[in-house]
Amino acid sequence: MTNWVYTFGDGKAEGDAAMKDLLGGKGANLAEMSNIGLPVPPGFTITTEVCTYYYDHENTYPADLEAQVKTALAQVEKTVGATFGDGDNPLLVSVRSGARVSMPGMMDTVLNLGLNDVTVEGLAKQSGDARFAYDSYRRFIQMYSDVVLGVDHYNFEELLEILKEENGYIMDTELSADDWKELAQAFKKKAEEELGRPFPQDVHEQLWGAIDAVFGSWMIDRAKTYRRINGIPSEWGTAVNVQSMVFGNMGETSATGVTFTRDPSTGENAYYGEYLINAQGEDVVAGIRTPQNLTKISREKSGSDLPSMEESMPEVYGELADVFVKLEAHYRDMQDIEFTVQKGKLWILQTRSGKRTAKAALKIAVDMAEDGIITREEAILRVEPAALDQLLHPTLDPDAARDVLTIGLPASPGAASGIVVFTADEAEELAKSGQKIILVRQETSPEDIHGMHAAAGILTSRGGMTSHAAVVARGMGRPCVSGAGALRIDMDKKIISVLGRTIQNHETLTIDGGTGEVMAGEVATIQPELSGDFGKLMGWADEIRRLKVRANAETPLDARTARDFGAEGIGLCRTEHMFFDADRIANVRQMILAEDRAGRMEALAKLLPVQKQDFIELFTIMRGLPVTVRLLDPPLHEFLPQQQEDFAAVAEATGSSIEQLKFRADALHETNPMLGHRGCRLGISYPEIYEMQARAIIEAALEVTKGGGASIVPEIMIPLVGSRKELEILKVKVSAVADEIIGASGQKLDYMVGTMIELPRAALQAGEIAKEAEFFSFGTNDLTQTTFGISRDDSASFLDDYIHAGIFAQDPFVTIDQAGVGELVKIAVDRGRATRPEIKLGICGEHGGDPASVEFCHGIGLDYVSCSPYRVPIARLAAAQAKLKE
Amino acid sequence: MTNWVYTFGDGKAEGDAAMKDLLGGKGANLAEMSNIGLPVPPGFTITTEVCTYYYDHENTYPADLEAQVKTALAQVEKTVGATFGDGDNPLLVSVRSGARVSMPGMMDTVLNLGLNDVTVEGLAKQSGDARFAYDSYRRFIQMYSDVVLGVDHYNFEELLEILKEENGYIMDTELSADDWKELAQAFKKKAEEELGRPFPQDVHEQLWGAIDAVFGSWMIDRAKTYRRINGIPSEWGTAVNVQSMVFGNMGETSATGVTFTRDPSTGENAYYGEYLINAQGEDVVAGIRTPQNLTKISREKSGSDLPSMEESMPEVYGELADVFVKLEAHYRDMQDIEFTVQKGKLWILQTRSGKRTAKAALKIAVDMAEDGIITREEAILRVEPAALDQLLHPTLDPDAARDVLTIGLPASPGAASGIVVFTADEAEELAKSGQKIILVRQETSPEDIHGMHAAAGILTSRGGMTSHAAVVARGMGRPCVSGAGALRIDMDKKIISVLGRTIQNHETLTIDGGTGEVMAGEVATIQPELSGDFGKLMGWADEIRRLKVRANAETPLDARTARDFGAEGIGLCRTEHMFFDADRIANVRQMILAEDRAGRMEALAKLLPVQKQDFIELFTIMRGLPVTVRLLDPPLHEFLPQQQEDFAAVAEATGSSIEQLKFRADALHETNPMLGHRGCRLGISYPEIYEMQARAIIEAALEVTKGGGASIVPEIMIPLVGSRKELEILKVKVSAVADEIIGASGQKLDYMVGTMIELPRAALQAGEIAKEAEFFSFGTNDLTQTTFGISRDDSASFLDDYIHAGIFAQDPFVTIDQAGVGELVKIAVDRGRATRPEIKLGICGEHGGDPASVEFCHGIGLDYVSCSPYRVPIARLAAAQAKLKE
Repeated sequence: MTNWVYTFGDGKAEGDAAMKDLLGGKGANLAEMSNIGLPVPPGFTITTEVCTYYYDHENTYPADLEAQVKTALAQVEKTVGATFGDGDNPLLVSVRSGARVSMPGMMDTVLNLGLNDVTVEGLAKQSGDARFAYDSYRRFIQMYSDVVLGVDHYNFEELLEILKEENGYIMDTELSADDWKELAQAFKKKAEEELGRPFPQDVHEQLWGAIDAVFGSWMIDRAKTYRRINGIPSEWGTAVNVQSMVFGNMGETSATGVTFTRDPSTGENAYYGEYLINAQGEDVVAGIRTPQNLTKISREKSGSDLPSMEESMPEVYGELADVFVKLEAHYRDMQDIEFTVQKGKLWILQTRSGKRTAKAALKIAVDMAEDGIITREEAILRVEPAALDQLLHPTLDPDAARDVLTIGLPASPGAASGIVVFTADEAEELAKSGQKIILVRQETSPEDIHGMHAAAGILTSRGGMTSHAAVVARGMGRPCVSGAGALRIDMDKKIISVLGRTIQNHETLTIDGGTGEVMAGEVATIQPELSGDFGKLMGWADEIRRLKVRANAETPLDARTARDFGAEGIGLCRTEHMFFDADRIANVRQMILAEDRAGRMEALAKLLPVQKQDFIELFTIMRGLPVTVRLLDPPLHEFLPQQQEDFAAVAEATGSSIEQLKFRADALHETNPMLGHRGCRLGISYPEIYEMQARAIIEAALEVTKGGGASIVPEIMIPLVGSRKELEILKVKVSAVADEIIGASGQKLDYMVGTMIELPRAALQAGEIAKEAEFFSFGTNDLTQTTFGISRDDSASFLDDYIHAGIFAQDPFVTIDQAGVGELVKIAVDRGRATRPEIKLGICGEHGGDPASVEFCHGIGLDYVSCSPYRVPIARLAAAQAKLKE
Repeated sequence: MTNWVYTFGDGKAEGDAAMKDLLGGKGANLAEMSNIGLPVPPGFTITTEVCTYYYDHENTYPADLEAQVKTALAQVEKTVGATFGDGDNPLLVSVRSGARVSMPGMMDTVLNLGLNDVTVEGLAKQSGDARFAYDSYRRFIQMYSDVVLGVDHYNFEELLEILKEENGYIMDTELSADDWKELAQAFKKKAEEELGRPFPQDVHEQLWGAIDAVFGSWMIDRAKTYRRINGIPSEWGTAVNVQSMVFGNMGETSATGVTFTRDPSTGENAYYGEYLINAQGEDVVAGIRTPQNLTKISREKSGSDLPSMEESMPEVYGELADVFVKLEAHYRDMQDIEFTVQKGKLWILQTRSGKRTAKAALKIAVDMAEDGIITREEAILRVEPAALDQLLHPTLDPDAARDVLTIGLPASPGAASGIVVFTADEAEELAKSGQKIILVRQETSPEDIHGMHAAAGILTSRGGMTSHAAVVARGMGRPCVSGAGALRIDMDKKIISVLGRTIQNHETLTIDGGTGEVMAGEVATIQPELSGDFGKLMGWADEIRRLKVRANAETPLDARTARDFGAEGIGLCRTEHMFFDADRIANVRQMILAEDRAGRMEALAKLLPVQKQDFIELFTIMRGLPVTVRLLDPPLHEFLPQQQEDFAAVAEATGSSIEQLKFRADALHETNPMLGHRGCRLGISYPEIYEMQARAIIEAALEVTKGGGASIVPEIMIPLVGSRKELEILKVKVSAVADEIIGASGQKLDYMVGTMIELPRAALQAGEIAKEAEFFSFGTNDLTQTTFGISRDDSASFLDDYIHAGIFAQDPFVTIDQAGVGELVKIAVDRGRATRPEIKLGICGEHGGDPASVEFCHGIGLDYVSCSPYRVPIARLAAAQAKLKE
């Protein structure tokens, strides 16, 4: 018989932390916490296998599930000493979802389940607080109606507002027990009106309704969106946790809170939490009341005059601190903990590894490794490589003038400027057209996720540091300022008023998620400074990884940045990028528009000294490291003059007429330039171009190494090769030039000649091509284009359709397509090595800086990856992780 | 010890016909003819291995070659009874090249070798004809100087002209023995002047010089060009044949001639040859004198008043006819024979399988099979599939008015119109720009081959049916009229004068190579009528072949043509071709420019009835056969309005403004449309388009089969699929429409849904895709584009460079690239069949009509090929040959 239900509580559990796949993250952790003796309200978990069964069997359950739930419920009743549905001493439960990985706010939750007209009296009796009992009852009716029965919560909030108005109340706390009782009855009636049938009084009907709702919510749109963004397979399913209720809203000795054992923004080793007295947990997370600090020191820092928990409940705080220590030691990671204090007794409701910023992840990992809590290898695995991006990008220039409108909570670090947009849909739409967006909301909800994803930054007027906006923004790496209460946001008129000033729709704002500042206009930014932790972790990663990491760079600035970020050479120097300067382009145009070889030679003679000077600078910066220089690659017409004055400039330089030049420019137009006369095809047609470039490279290398010292081994790379013969012909020409110059110089210089593998045919013919090539560099941008038959420039019109339809799990230009492009790369690696075992193999497409792709490159045995300078640290870390995951 | 030299003659030989690779075609046949007792002048062959050795060893020979040549020469001397270099009874030899396959006129030949100031006297004594001896000597000096020593033959021709002028001679026959002697001395002096050293008198020096020249000529440009055009590897090398001379120019009882055992133009079973009395063989082939007919009947037919050989030399003619019978029976094929009559004695100099027109090849193969000389299988293999093209293309309309300028020799069948061009270079250049060219020359030479290849037709004023122009044109399948003596061609002024009229450079002419007519202007053409032989051979081929042959067709005319040519279904109906009609394009444009689904639906509703009517016509023609219909494939902007009035038409139909439409049209522009929003990507974005097309297909199929009778199984093909998921999504949509319509009709209808495999990723993912696809059709046009990363539209700018550089052996868009594209096709076949063993596999790219590609498709086990209607017979024959070659 399959065990569909696992109990926990009372110092023991049927499951444990290792059973996340079956029990979900929350269920596994509740079991684990029970096992280590923490005060967990007893309950049981219905497994993720039930969810799978449910969707495989037209939304029905296994036959034996009901009996197992009954048995588990009886055990909880026995432990708690209360009975589900009992009029005197009723057991109340919460019903929560719990997937394998945390999906904050995505799944529905029902609290206080088990209340009806009879049990509410028992609760009043047991708690000695009728006000609390009826408040709980009306909360339950509202939540259950909303989540399970589909009656919008606004229906109920309206009734509360009316009652308050009629009685002249301002605050909820002014309502009496009778008021809440009256409201509960009104809520029931409202639900019946909306549903056409009475609100369920049978507690078992309530329970199964809630279980259905949890499983049903796995397939609602916002859950699917979250899974899509975060790459979570829908086959995983969710578990359901049914747990006895504890109450943080039983008066002034009760409280509820959420805490991180370390600061999730900075990684500082200090408790970082919020609590509310006399409140239920949802009040903290939903951001409806602004919560109080957990510790005295944080209260003082924030300048709050509301007492911290450390001050107001010193004893319970002490117990809680012990739990923090115990949990962090047990899980060996920073924990995100939900707790409730019921009449002075502490209950732990949930623990999980806390989401954190990249900066925090880095500091926590390094601190824990240095404290011996985890190993260096574990520390390396704890930091998400892609998240490093946050640390490597600009922040606001401290010296720049700031027109600060107000200061909110520093909810997610980083700075962003953009135009103000008020809805998630508009944010997504405008972001697609390339606009930078600041999404402004009173508070965010799961329905806003797509807009938050599209935005450069998020600003809310309500909610704390653990509000939805803050948690989600940190997870996404988006800067966020939350709870900026001075903002008055008019959603209809799309205007923000702040202290007498107004910000119109689409005006530009800047936010600093590290300080909470909200500023008018755009504020200048500066390069990030990296902490010592960064250097330490990178050092540990470098000791582990096998893959070398190079950078794609051609300017001295990029090359220096790359070296600073630890690049071990240049994997791709795109020589055409050196041609776009205003003072060079005329000569390039002259070369392209030349009618014959003589005309081209004349223009090339002018380009040679500047090209050589470029290489001298580059080689000087990269001394001692390999530099791969790709010869001219793009379609010639990319360089063509567009404006009349550009034509005139070339006409003057060459003595040709403008009409002649336009005629020639027309002749160079191509229908599909990506598949046209480019790459080595130019080299075959006009060998003098590659000969000039070879000369510039070799002369520069000789110049740089003339005085001795660290050498340069230029790797001359021929692009877009599809057959051995192409490479053979061009290698002969390039080598002839190189050997002649080296011979005449009297110096010694090694150089290599190799090729890009960026066409399917090149991958298939790699065995033949390797007879000529001393190295392969996989140009996976072009290889992705040709393997899929998709132009990167033109894919935008259908890429979204493709991702939505589930055809692409992710953009194949971002993460390498292992099934197609990856197979071709593997074929090329195998065939290339079979011919020339010592062949050097690397990748220089954008994928070189994508962690999943780096792992793939490690797995198939490449020698190095090459990526943009800012991605070098990401690649270094990803390479180390790939090695550790082997 | 390697045997480098093989002797023949005197009724026996060391080699035989099977040793073509070693002895070359000519050498092997000389040996074979010796073995079967024909009168072959004795000689020896230096093998092709010596050629290979020569080029592998920096133009040197094996050490033991000289001794072997000496031994062989001694044996020839003994057989002939004359001695090489002997002053009394000198042996004279010819030195000729002979490669594995015939390369007419491409290699250098030297005759009369062994003559010097001493031996010429011996020859005069032996022949009793001093005039002949000195004529031979001066011919030898001229030829040897030209071919071996590099002194241009014009130098010598000038001296002859001067001598004739000084003496008032018109004809060469007026020269006396002394005149020739004087001329021989003058030639020697001229050679010495040009060379700076005396003309060689040492006969062994002469012999080795000639051998060097033959081997050296293997690598001259015109030989390389010929090999490139004909796909002959340069590794094969040439043999050298050294053979004792016989003389057709020893007076009126001597003659020389060239004969085919059947008519090489029509295939008629009648001797077809020419001879010249008192001439050397080169005189016939070079077209310097217009030769006489071989048989009485052909003389009568041509209206010649010069006697035929049958009439003038009846006895020798009888011997020759016996040789023809013997040779055709021995080789079981039509022979091309060179002979010489020396003072009444017949010598056979050469035999080889005769080149022939497609028409002749067909008739000869069928005749020989019906006469039991060869089997039907051999008959099938005797006809070059590509040559059938000649039979399938238009000829001149007999009812069209013809402005006949003159009538020449009908040298190569077929009709062609084009502009007059006088040089091969210009012909090649103008043909590249798409012009149709008639290349006009007094006579052609091997230097003209590239121009003949580029021309639509060839016209010469001199030379016979076996002249260079005629032989080469027949081989290439180019129409040719030769020997049109009424033409006066002024090469300098580029003007033709003919009977008082003049034709300027670039004026249009029409030639009919089947009648010899030369006409002013362009003459209308008609469809070819196919002979019964064609039907017979096709029938035999159909019995043998395994591959089915379908056609690519969408119009009723194409479909009917395809069925007439034996297509077994339609393999590719490109639905977009049905959209280009003037009365439909406005609706298509409305669909494309629609802002939303509603607008598209409106336009599609108008397209549905016309699309359905198209399919009804097509299915009616193809009843009982499968029809593969490809859903909309091309980039949308191919249909976009270009002109203001086109926009206006759409604006009127839709109520949109022209500005709106232009904005939308701009938005649809793509950088690389081949890799853009096209194929099934349109189906994913706009499913309503494919739904309309599925509806039209299914409704049409139901309509056509409503009354019973042969059924139609529509094969609905989704283009440009790269992953299983794409096909899965679209198959669901298409099937839903189809099943609903079929269900509602109450009829039974089978249909299939499959895909093109035309992207590298699709080939790699074929195992997954086959889970959805009921058939694959390889779209090798697009697959070639993406595998090579070459746009067919843009390749012209470098394709020539690539073929010249030897990177492409042939245009990969014409013949499938087996190493790259072919491997992907093989992978897809293997993976597709592994998933779905019964999957139907075909090819519908242009390669489907290319014989080499058809053989490849047979080899990898495809079920069918599909090609343009006119190529269907070619594919049928190629498929049968592929099966026979297995």
